[in-house]
Amino acid sequence: MAGVAPLDRAGAHELSFLVHRRYLAAFRRSAAGVVLCAPEFAAEPGGPACRVVVPEPHVALLAIIPLLYPEPVWTSGIHATAVIGPGARWDDPVAIGPYVVLGAQVRLGRNVRVGASCVLGDGVVLGDDVLLHPHVVCYSGTVVGNRVTLHAGVRLGSDGFGYVPSRAGEPPRKIPQIGRCIVGDDVEIGANTTIDRGSVDDTVIGAGTKVDNLVQVGHNVHIGARCLIAGQAGIAGSTHLGDDVFLGGQAGVSDHVHIGRGARVLVQGGVIGDIDAGATVSGYPARSHRDVLRAQGVLSRLSRIAAELEALVHEPDDHGH
Amino acid sequence: MAGVAPLDRAGAHELSFLVHRRYLAAFRRSAAGVVLCAPEFAAEPGGPACRVVVPEPHVALLAIIPLLYPEPVWTSGIHATAVIGPGARWDDPVAIGPYVVLGAQVRLGRNVRVGASCVLGDGVVLGDDVLLHPHVVCYSGTVVGNRVTLHAGVRLGSDGFGYVPSRAGEPPRKIPQIGRCIVGDDVEIGANTTIDRGSVDDTVIGAGTKVDNLVQVGHNVHIGARCLIAGQAGIAGSTHLGDDVFLGGQAGVSDHVHIGRGARVLVQGGVIGDIDAGATVSGYPARSHRDVLRAQGVLSRLSRIAAELEALVHEPDDHGH
Amino acid sequence: MAGVAPLDRAGAHELSFLVHRRYLAAFRRSAAGVVLCAPEFAAEPGGPACRVVVPEPHVALLAIIPLLYPEPVWTSGIHATAVIGPGARWDDPVAIGPYVVLGAQVRLGRNVRVGASCVLGDGVVLGDDVLLHPHVVCYSGTVVGNRVTLHAGVRLGSDGFGYVPSRAGEPPRKIPQIGRCIVGDDVEIGANTTIDRGSVDDTVIGAGTKVDNLVQVGHNVHIGARCLIAGQAGIAGSTHLGDDVFLGGQAGVSDHVHIGRGARVLVQGGVIGDIDAGATVSGYPARSHRDVLRAQGVLSRLSRIAAELEALVHEPDDHGH
Repeated sequence: MAGVAPLDRAGAHELSFLVHRRYLAAFRRSAAGVVLCAPEFAAEPGGPACRVVVPEPHVALLAIIPLLYPEPVWTSGIHATAVIGPGARWDDPVAIGPYVVLGAQVRLGRNVRVGASCVLGDGVVLGDDVLLHPHVVCYSGTVVGNRVTLHAGVRLGSDGFGYVPSRAGEPPRKIPQIGRCIVGDDVEIGANTTIDRGSVDDTVIGAGTKVDNLVQVGHNVHIGARCLIAGQAGIAGSTHLGDDVFLGGQAGVSDHVHIGRGARVLVQGGVIGDIDAGATVSGYPARSHRDVLRAQGVLSRLSRIAAELEALVHEPDDHGH
Repeated sequence: MAGVAPLDRAGAHELSFLVHRRYLAAFRRSAAGVVLCAPEFAAEPGGPACRVVVPEPHVALLAIIPLLYPEPVWTSGIHATAVIGPGARWDDPVAIGPYVVLGAQVRLGRNVRVGASCVLGDGVVLGDDVLLHPHVVCYSGTVVGNRVTLHAGVRLGSDGFGYVPSRAGEPPRKIPQIGRCIVGDDVEIGANTTIDRGSVDDTVIGAGTKVDNLVQVGHNVHIGARCLIAGQAGIAGSTHLGDDVFLGGQAGVSDHVHIGRGARVLVQGGVIGDIDAGATVSGYPARSHRDVLRAQGVLSRLSRIAAELEALVHEPDDHGH
Repeated sequence: MAGVAPLDRAGAHELSFLVHRRYLAAFRRSAAGVVLCAPEFAAEPGGPACRVVVPEPHVALLAIIPLLYPEPVWTSGIHATAVIGPGARWDDPVAIGPYVVLGAQVRLGRNVRVGASCVLGDGVVLGDDVLLHPHVVCYSGTVVGNRVTLHAGVRLGSDGFGYVPSRAGEPPRKIPQIGRCIVGDDVEIGANTTIDRGSVDDTVIGAGTKVDNLVQVGHNVHIGARCLIAGQAGIAGSTHLGDDVFLGGQAGVSDHVHIGRGARVLVQGGVIGDIDAGATVSGYPARSHRDVLRAQGVLSRLSRIAAELEALVHEPDDHGH
């Protein structure tokens, strides 16, 4: 096999996969050399004859892709243009790219790669096997664990949004933000995502948590382990998420809220109060997704009902009075 | 004429325009030398006497602005600080700014301008007449067509959000993202917008499509031609948009959804299922905007109705029993 | 005192604070040397004995934090790698970091600090005491007042989203964006926020206004003084906000809307029409928050009511016919 490709593009020397009924038409027309099939499609008529039936083709791909697409080899070294602050140190090998700026006392673990133009403020600590894509900025005091990947444009440790509101026409007064931003092991953070430092407490991202692009995490937020936070979700200050929480795209959580372990907030859900462990919520204000769908159903029947009702209410005599 | 200015600021040597009734008060007080007027305002009493009546003043401005505000002339050349990878090549003239980093085998067309600190990964291809404002990052394998403009902080080709969910306390496992990000001709992409590479398939932005700031486009998304995607909209993985689709600001579209040609999703609309060609939808879950407004009307009458109803339901004896 | 810490982490040499009942459990277990207490907790049993009772502990902290955490001293100077355009000038002292690029005729006031890799286009003007964190980009013509802080990744003055819609399959035509982005005194703008230049008019951020991370501000928007704009909020083109307006996280405002002085748009509120001064609104389309909560209450009672109603409507004979 020369590579992996979707059913509609794969050729005789490529591997493809069939995981859902919606791809059956593409499967029947596919020229793929081999197809990983979920069991329910093992005997599907038409399509490539050479099938490997596996319970979860997506998981099987995890083992195959690294063989067909080996990670590019990286070369260790400090680019001549990198600006290294006093007291910065690291465990070889590391790769520090062009135009990188490391502040004073920065500390990098082994196998750390820092992409072009990244800026690490004074005292930033990165663990082992950390990959920073280009253009990451970590403010001073940021602490990052092992095996962490930060994508382009991530900002860690920026000041939280804390002000004493305006009185008598004075501008709002800034509350100094002196906490840290702490990122656990095995975390991945998507492009242009921003995570504020704590105000006095710290902002903490738990081990194994994955954060998508353009997500906003406010000051003093604590996110548990193994959470999945989808694109453009936002978490306001001092909110806590338990372990294994899922936030859908554009979901928002107000400040000082607690979301229980394993809860799921669906796409665009707006959470303004605590959510029980294991709950699935949606809508604004977020409530049980089942209730949201039921309410939608009722609403759509309501125009009709309302008309009948108003007749009923306004003509009581018709009912026997 | 020395320039174009809004009605309230334009002076005797400036051109202004009147396109909507809401600007009539400003028109009457305006000192503009000349005003482009829509036909319905041609005989409007008061205001500047020198009027040019045109069916669409905004469109007329398209022809005038380039005369009064010529595009700044650019100077070709490679800045001495640019880091150029092995095998990178281009068609002269091009302008490559300070602190730009081009990876191996990067290919640029004619009249390409790359702003300060841009980073293009290995094998990135840009067509002719492409303008990259400062701080754009294109991950390896990104392909950009002709006459494309990318604004500051755009990230193309970052990894999609693909994980096998956590089991038994293990961190979620990353699904390698090996597809490309492909941007068609005549596309413009706004500041800090992020567009992921495909997982196995590619992510594709159709020709002539315009994308605003802070938009998120997930892996394997296909956007058709001539779409308009407003600020902070988000499109989750594997969703397809037909040609001429409009997404309003902060609109969100779930994964694996199909939006038909010419459909319109209004501000903040949350799409979780397929949308017909030509439909106009809003709300969450997004449905016909007409139905949303009707449901809102019913809801606002509902408090009153509900009170009357509960009386009716709970006191049936009053109705003759 | 050696520092400030939250109740659960403060030691004998640290100061902490108690502002809300929800922190009482942490207070009782706290080892803090001194606790700033709101008056209602002055005589609270248990917890640290050394208490300073102040009406507003958060405000008291504003005076204490700068003593315990003095701002880092900065050193003036122009880094050797900075690229300075012709005619750029400043009032000493200033600090210009590594890999900064200043365009032609840039003008900086006194005590301006420009972080690593910032790019200021031709003619950009910054007032006195301005702090640019790393990776800020200001397009040409941007004007920034005194005592302004811009966080990492802020983009000021990018082109607004203005196109003449597609006709007959032609790509949409760009309307040239020739206005400016003007930021008043005492403004702070959060990480990765984008503020477009005006189309013909200017985009204006009023004095004392604070903007959080990942906010989008469209062309020709006017924001009044002392507004607070929370994370991921978005404001579409030509909309005006009065003074002292609050936008909650992920709130969105359509184009050409006017929001009155002191109005509050709650988390995720979607404003599509004018809002009165002093109003508090939420939901989509945004309306009085009180009405939204009442409608929610009615909706949740509705499933029950609807069932009873349909019985009532469809069996009118039971009522005496």
